[in-house]
Amino acid sequence: MTTMTGRFSGRDMEMAGDPWLAELAAIRHAFEERMAQLLPDSGNGSDTLAAAMRAGTLGAGKRMRPLLLMLVARDLGCASPALVDIACAVEMVHAASLILDDMPCMDDAMLRRGQPTIHVQYGEDVAILASVALLSRAFGVLATAPGIRPEVRARLVAKLAETVGSQGLVRGQFEDLRGGGQRSEAEIASTNELKTGVLLGVSVDMAAILAETDDCVAESLRAFALAAGHAFQIRDDFQDDPANDTSVTGKDTGKDLGKATLINALGFEEARKRLARHLDEADRCLTDAIGSKQRTRRFVDTLFGQGGGFRFAGRPLAATPDRHLVRH
Amino acid sequence: MTTMTGRFSGRDMEMAGDPWLAELAAIRHAFEERMAQLLPDSGNGSDTLAAAMRAGTLGAGKRMRPLLLMLVARDLGCASPALVDIACAVEMVHAASLILDDMPCMDDAMLRRGQPTIHVQYGEDVAILASVALLSRAFGVLATAPGIRPEVRARLVAKLAETVGSQGLVRGQFEDLRGGGQRSEAEIASTNELKTGVLLGVSVDMAAILAETDDCVAESLRAFALAAGHAFQIRDDFQDDPANDTSVTGKDTGKDLGKATLINALGFEEARKRLARHLDEADRCLTDAIGSKQRTRRFVDTLFGQGGGFRFAGRPLAATPDRHLVRH
Repeated sequence: MTTMTGRFSGRDMEMAGDPWLAELAAIRHAFEERMAQLLPDSGNGSDTLAAAMRAGTLGAGKRMRPLLLMLVARDLGCASPALVDIACAVEMVHAASLILDDMPCMDDAMLRRGQPTIHVQYGEDVAILASVALLSRAFGVLATAPGIRPEVRARLVAKLAETVGSQGLVRGQFEDLRGGGQRSEAEIASTNELKTGVLLGVSVDMAAILAETDDCVAESLRAFALAAGHAFQIRDDFQDDPANDTSVTGKDTGKDLGKATLINALGFEEARKRLARHLDEADRCLTDAIGSKQRTRRFVDTLFGQGGGFRFAGRPLAATPDRHLVRH
Repeated sequence: MTTMTGRFSGRDMEMAGDPWLAELAAIRHAFEERMAQLLPDSGNGSDTLAAAMRAGTLGAGKRMRPLLLMLVARDLGCASPALVDIACAVEMVHAASLILDDMPCMDDAMLRRGQPTIHVQYGEDVAILASVALLSRAFGVLATAPGIRPEVRARLVAKLAETVGSQGLVRGQFEDLRGGGQRSEAEIASTNELKTGVLLGVSVDMAAILAETDDCVAESLRAFALAAGHAFQIRDDFQDDPANDTSVTGKDTGKDLGKATLINALGFEEARKRLARHLDEADRCLTDAIGSKQRTRRFVDTLFGQGGGFRFAGRPLAATPDRHLVRH
């Protein structure tokens, strides 16, 4: 349990004038500005395609993946001008996947982040088109981001394609929808890895590719991302518990009732223990990769809430002191 | 009218032992083999995602775009080993767009190429996921195709992203769905350019990028593709006429009744004249780009049917002598 009280503890984060919080806020600000530049308002009121793309990406979301990417890259000593663009590409893919996940033929969600989902706002046709356009934009951004060596660029594109495709996000959603409610623990873990781990994995992978780090470091980072992904998935399962109020969590809760989750499979207490083990593992792998560097470590702290313990479980993130940084 | 009786005439194509037909058949064979390699059968009967991806791409379709790409590249003197891979990527994008176009929230088509559409066969969720997986696979293929200079690879990725995205195919489908039935001739032409021209355009653009041709040639090729795209769109409008029998055309006809087409806007005869003018323009631009080279020119002939005149209009392509090459 070193995880929640030791290296991943963030008790001191609420101190006034914390330079870490200032750095995180600056990184997030740069990211939001760049996203808005890459997805400009068309200025045409009837262009609901552009509006849907912007609604799906701008002004909301935890930004967990792009911030993780930028912080890991900085911890690896990378200061490439392309960093923020690569982060935007990863977030566009994440947003595209959420738009599709919410569709009536998939999770049939009406609310996300306290707002009507994209297909509810703009129609199913526009939602699908916006999602495809965001995916394409992500690849376009990778192809044109400034100051990337050509070999590195090709690796980034290949990595993103692999992340989205039939062995990545798409496969995870497919297994989640079509795998049925009676899957084994191993099958659930595999789906969780695909759905959550993949986009955390791609964040650290992209950072490692851009930083041109060695394979050993890249592997440790990948192991960190997988462990953290498992932890986040269990946390999300707790947050999706029907006991939570929609008005607090900002999304449709209880949608997973018919689905196989680790909480359903293992029970509440065992799931909490698993979560702690995953965080311990994440911490260990992170040390292997970046030693005592603090950005990534403190960011994980920020995401899981301050003060140690499992206070995040069932607790809306908006109630944490850093709500301006980590929106739900 | 030089188009139908002169350079684009293919009267001699039915001659026995025509080396052109042999070359076209060999190119098509290599393409089909590579597509099947890139989208392998998972060997798992419950993997309907892989099955849907294969059903959407393999064994059917005119293959107009990939064949055009490979023939233009050959006419430009390019013999890159990556050629067939790039052609596969373009066809995957085309297949992905057809799967989505057929969805209930879009064109709501039940039949394509004589078969139930992908969402009818596999469900809407799997159809969407298969489409996204095909798009991603296309980018992945570009990122990893053998023997491409890094700068060329980045240009190929950027071009494909631009082709799919919110200014390309997605925009065309959006305007088609949401533009309404009372659009002006200019608006219809613009949508046609986006929907059909874009994927012909990307075929010649990708060929020009891979062949590393000069800008002037690339521009002439692009003008050729746009003109040919307009011609194909009008031809498709004729084929979609409700007078055609579904059992002959293999797809839902009459779906465009509520949509704005050039035939509706201009009348039958004027649309035929436009078609002839577009083919003349295509021929002229092609001469500017590749001089007297014959592959691309004869391929256009093949697509529009042999013997001159407008015999293709309303006539199923399957009835042409080259039905083994050009499936509908």
